[in-house]
Amino acid sequence: MKQASAFASASVGNIGVGFDILGHSIAGAGDRATVRRIDAPQVRIAAIRGSTADLPHDAEHNTAGAALIAMRDELRLAFGFEIELDKGIAFGSGMGGSAASAVAALVAANALLEAPLPRQDLYPFALTGEAAASGGRHGDNVGPMLLGGVVLATVARLWRIAVPDAWHCVLVHPHATLETRRARAVLAGAHALHDFVAQSAHLAQFVLGCERGDADLVRAGLRDVLVEPRRAPLITGFEQVKQAALDMGAMGSSISGAGPSVFAWFESLAQADVAAPAMRAAFAATGFDSDVFISPINGPAAEIVA
Amino acid sequence: MKQASAFASASVGNIGVGFDILGHSIAGAGDRATVRRIDAPQVRIAAIRGSTADLPHDAEHNTAGAALIAMRDELRLAFGFEIELDKGIAFGSGMGGSAASAVAALVAANALLEAPLPRQDLYPFALTGEAAASGGRHGDNVGPMLLGGVVLATVARLWRIAVPDAWHCVLVHPHATLETRRARAVLAGAHALHDFVAQSAHLAQFVLGCERGDADLVRAGLRDVLVEPRRAPLITGFEQVKQAALDMGAMGSSISGAGPSVFAWFESLAQADVAAPAMRAAFAATGFDSDVFISPINGPAAEIVA
Repeated sequence: MKQASAFASASVGNIGVGFDILGHSIAGAGDRATVRRIDAPQVRIAAIRGSTADLPHDAEHNTAGAALIAMRDELRLAFGFEIELDKGIAFGSGMGGSAASAVAALVAANALLEAPLPRQDLYPFALTGEAAASGGRHGDNVGPMLLGGVVLATVARLWRIAVPDAWHCVLVHPHATLETRRARAVLAGAHALHDFVAQSAHLAQFVLGCERGDADLVRAGLRDVLVEPRRAPLITGFEQVKQAALDMGAMGSSISGAGPSVFAWFESLAQADVAAPAMRAAFAATGFDSDVFISPINGPAAEIVA
Repeated sequence: MKQASAFASASVGNIGVGFDILGHSIAGAGDRATVRRIDAPQVRIAAIRGSTADLPHDAEHNTAGAALIAMRDELRLAFGFEIELDKGIAFGSGMGGSAASAVAALVAANALLEAPLPRQDLYPFALTGEAAASGGRHGDNVGPMLLGGVVLATVARLWRIAVPDAWHCVLVHPHATLETRRARAVLAGAHALHDFVAQSAHLAQFVLGCERGDADLVRAGLRDVLVEPRRAPLITGFEQVKQAALDMGAMGSSISGAGPSVFAWFESLAQADVAAPAMRAAFAATGFDSDVFISPINGPAAEIVA
């Protein structure tokens, strides 16, 4: 096979209490990568379509390019890759657009190898790709895209945590952008141990609640006291959208990735269906149109597409 | 019934990666409290035996006394309690001695109520008792004493996490004391978000590993990068004792509570039995005699005794 295409879904990074380590995939939006095997041991970006942002075309600064360079180098491939990207995730939305291009390209390229690797083994390459955009090796977006569903992503590897199929996420993406670097800047500086202990307690309850499928535990845990208070002021309407979700029975609501998208978790699709327009209306009331996605929290893994 | 006695086991606070929120009980050492119901609505400490330390005899500054005052006030009891304590846990050992007196007294007093409360409902009183000694409301010691085994203790409530019965802990208590306040002082000051993220990843793996009974996950997670590096220099021989445990196949090893006791987790009693003398020898090589405890990690809950 000389060419393959893959689709990687959007994701909710951090899930509020798992800064840089927890995420889950979201059905309904994603990036598509078409990868061709070429004789020259080079990695080239042939085209980027669908993005309004000026994404890097030089491979080493592009997340998909950097990921495939890492794969080529680690596997000592004698050939190269040419990549076409169709961006379906809006730039700066906090939905993991940088990660999706990297993962889609890796899954497509993997299909072109003599001996394709298991998904877990693509993870280090995906981290390198993500780092090209964010500057850091954090797997909270690439992890769930590779495995699907809720994923705990450490520096070394990925662990999937299955949640009940009934649980659904509403993600609302306001038509505003927030650069990851700016969202990270507000986190600089020192943090008190006290805040970390509180966040740790929430994280532990959240992980346990997901693993047990216990909505009360998730409800107790899904409260970000470390990052959200610093980032929320950057997102007009955040508090209102979050409150709209909680009023509709959300287990919790916070910022998706670096924002400005806002997510909320619900115990059923029916609840999510009712909450979604209320969350959208809350953004509209502050002057922002938005796109709404409703997805199982056990969202899809990236896959080869025709 | 006018009098009851209860025994509360020692505990490993923090379990390395769960600062102030995770702990487990340890069989083999503990405090005993004998509580008498008295007509006057007072709480009095009648005797403290077995401790070489000069523990407070005025009830509000004694952990057992403060816990029973909290119970009396919250439940609006028209009577009071007189308490005798038999301390079996060495002062300043990092084995939860302050907490054990509070929990033993509460469990005994609870048996004297017209309508005894479930263990979870004793938790706020136990936190108040613990705060009399430590100044903070953290339940990582009182929690496992109340419920047994590994417990996640948030400010609001307790969650037990069952681990495989085969898993055992070795706790080595060197004949040296380390005041909790001094051990806390080294943690003052700011912490970098980067360290929090690393610790969070470990915590999440550890909790998931306990819940799944997955030793590899616990092994990946039981690594304290936040607190242990600051406290280890206060404990002569710590690195050698930890290394001795790891050399014997420990899933992980760290400081019990505020120290100076050191604990290690093993997948079997056989492994723990072999490691215990090696850990003790490592302390001895640095000039400290020590007591050794080997206990199932699913350790006992406090109970009424004759």
